[in-house]
Amino acid sequence: MPSAPFPAPRATAAASGPTVAIDIGGTKIAGALVHPDGTMTATTRRPTPRGADADSVMEAVAQVVADLSESPLWTAAVRCGIGSAGPVDTSRGTVSPVNIGAWRDFPVQERVAAELAARGADLPTVLAGDGVAMTAAEHWLGAARGHANALCMVVSTGVGGGLILNNQLHPGPTGNAGHIGHISVAFDGEPCACGGHGCVESIASGTAIARWALEQGWTPAGTDATAGAAGTTPGLHGAGGGGRDATAAGVAVAAAGGDPIALAAFDRAGRALAAAIAATATLVETDIAVIGGGVAAAGDTLFAPIRSHLASYATLSFVKDIQVVPAMLGTHAGLIGAAAAATMLLPSPPSSS
Amino acid sequence: MPSAPFPAPRATAAASGPTVAIDIGGTKIAGALVHPDGTMTATTRRPTPRGADADSVMEAVAQVVADLSESPLWTAAVRCGIGSAGPVDTSRGTVSPVNIGAWRDFPVQERVAAELAARGADLPTVLAGDGVAMTAAEHWLGAARGHANALCMVVSTGVGGGLILNNQLHPGPTGNAGHIGHISVAFDGEPCACGGHGCVESIASGTAIARWALEQGWTPAGTDATAGAAGTTPGLHGAGGGGRDATAAGVAVAAAGGDPIALAAFDRAGRALAAAIAATATLVETDIAVIGGGVAAAGDTLFAPIRSHLASYATLSFVKDIQVVPAMLGTHAGLIGAAAAATMLLPSPPSSS
Repeated sequence: MPSAPFPAPRATAAASGPTVAIDIGGTKIAGALVHPDGTMTATTRRPTPRGADADSVMEAVAQVVADLSESPLWTAAVRCGIGSAGPVDTSRGTVSPVNIGAWRDFPVQERVAAELAARGADLPTVLAGDGVAMTAAEHWLGAARGHANALCMVVSTGVGGGLILNNQLHPGPTGNAGHIGHISVAFDGEPCACGGHGCVESIASGTAIARWALEQGWTPAGTDATAGAAGTTPGLHGAGGGGRDATAAGVAVAAAGGDPIALAAFDRAGRALAAAIAATATLVETDIAVIGGGVAAAGDTLFAPIRSHLASYATLSFVKDIQVVPAMLGTHAGLIGAAAAATMLLPSPPSSS
Repeated sequence: MPSAPFPAPRATAAASGPTVAIDIGGTKIAGALVHPDGTMTATTRRPTPRGADADSVMEAVAQVVADLSESPLWTAAVRCGIGSAGPVDTSRGTVSPVNIGAWRDFPVQERVAAELAARGADLPTVLAGDGVAMTAAEHWLGAARGHANALCMVVSTGVGGGLILNNQLHPGPTGNAGHIGHISVAFDGEPCACGGHGCVESIASGTAIARWALEQGWTPAGTDATAGAAGTTPGLHGAGGGGRDATAAGVAVAAAGGDPIALAAFDRAGRALAAAIAATATLVETDIAVIGGGVAAAGDTLFAPIRSHLASYATLSFVKDIQVVPAMLGTHAGLIGAAAAATMLLPSPPSSS
């Protein structure tokens, strides 16, 4: 495993100031100054306003920028990276996050740039979807480090991801490449919420795992088991509090205890993920799949079936040695990723060395 | 449609000499000098020796090189591109073509370079798989021209392909990227010859279409119908001559005549191809799929079901407008592609302008 201090992401060595990082999600809007060694300062966060209009949500982003501008290092910042829940359209700088209903085709990149300029920081600004940002983070400082071709995934309420190809982030023209949750691994399969059929997300997301287990007759455990689950598998829960735990976290606990339906639910999800990981490797020659997100917190309950089923899908010589490993960056992957994506996607400044 | 003269492939404008192109397949080994405007001279071909040892097959390649070296333009050649049936390993310069049993991990790149040098042409040499070469050809002169992100496919006895990403050929580290025939679109599906399950090739290849139709009770037409099929759908036939046509060509003729099983066979293949095309677009943001090969010669019999089923798989905003079109380069796609791949993959010479 690599140890600190970390090298700067590729193509950035010449610009040594911090990156203004903003991470926009349905629950919170976070900010930090991310430094070339991967450390963060001036971290701040605001709750994402619920039921508010577009400008009110933007006001929370503006507050995050205002917080950051109070750092003594603010004037040294060299660029800004914005990571956002998707869908995004980086060709237009807009976002339409599923969990932020007030923002549809919202021009977040332009609005953030204006906030930066209003505080004296006229910086090049990059927008990235959260799957792409997470991928940039894992390639810079995490489990995909040193891999020229990698798939990084988040398996949580939904399933998202991003790609590193030829040592570069591959966001695609609109920033949505790596959207592995909505490729079909069952062309005759059930409809997905997206309108597709047999999508990975409709089989392997936490939501899908819990739904399938319940359909097969799995009985969620009661309050005591739920408390245990919360302690061992953070992030798997759809909702906090007591009562019966009918989420993927509850299924994971039951699987760890040997419940056959719960085991079958994770086995099925693992098979779908294995097929999708193998498909990606077969299409673009990725040699590692890094998986983060709440469902990945179930550890071997998820990873063991993925790895065992890979042999049924990753058969060709150039894909059969693919690795599947847990993500290394946790809480701050969004901010680190926003900074890493901006650093990787902006043109290099002229070398000063 | 673009008209001649064609521009040189990207990154090649400064080197105006011809490219030595060699196309190695299970039936023939072809060669040509391919010029920057896309024209070919000195075309030659030799049959691929059957049941021969590795050196005897190589001798046929050497004969092709010898033929080319007699051209008055030989001394002007600036590079060499070798396209080969796969699997290939471009990281080692070796090939193991399924249809050339004598060659397993055969160092074709080094051996061709030696033949070139022996004839006074010490040229930079590039090896590409035939799917990647076909993709380079369609991007240079064919249906993918002007598309920065494209999937090109061959649907024939098998299913292969290649990718253009960010206006560049994406062969991957071993030259096998774009291997769309062996991604799974049915993770619960039947075993494929590769060891996988539910592979596109096992559902949508010409072989698979014919097999499925026969299994469903389709009855091939006799000699007269076969003759008609050969006239309208060249390349679909697995075997020439008379008798009942139990190939995909026969199924295509029956489908065009309204046979319900034959129509269902192409519908099923079209659905699998639609799912795979949509998966690719969702993963890497390709905006066009170009399909060549014998089965594509069935025209709308194949293209209509692919296009109609895309709506069931390509649902997200950034993929829903994907186009699916026939390949434009026919007989010479292999030679044009070998030259185009070499031109795209070799570093640009210093600009002289």
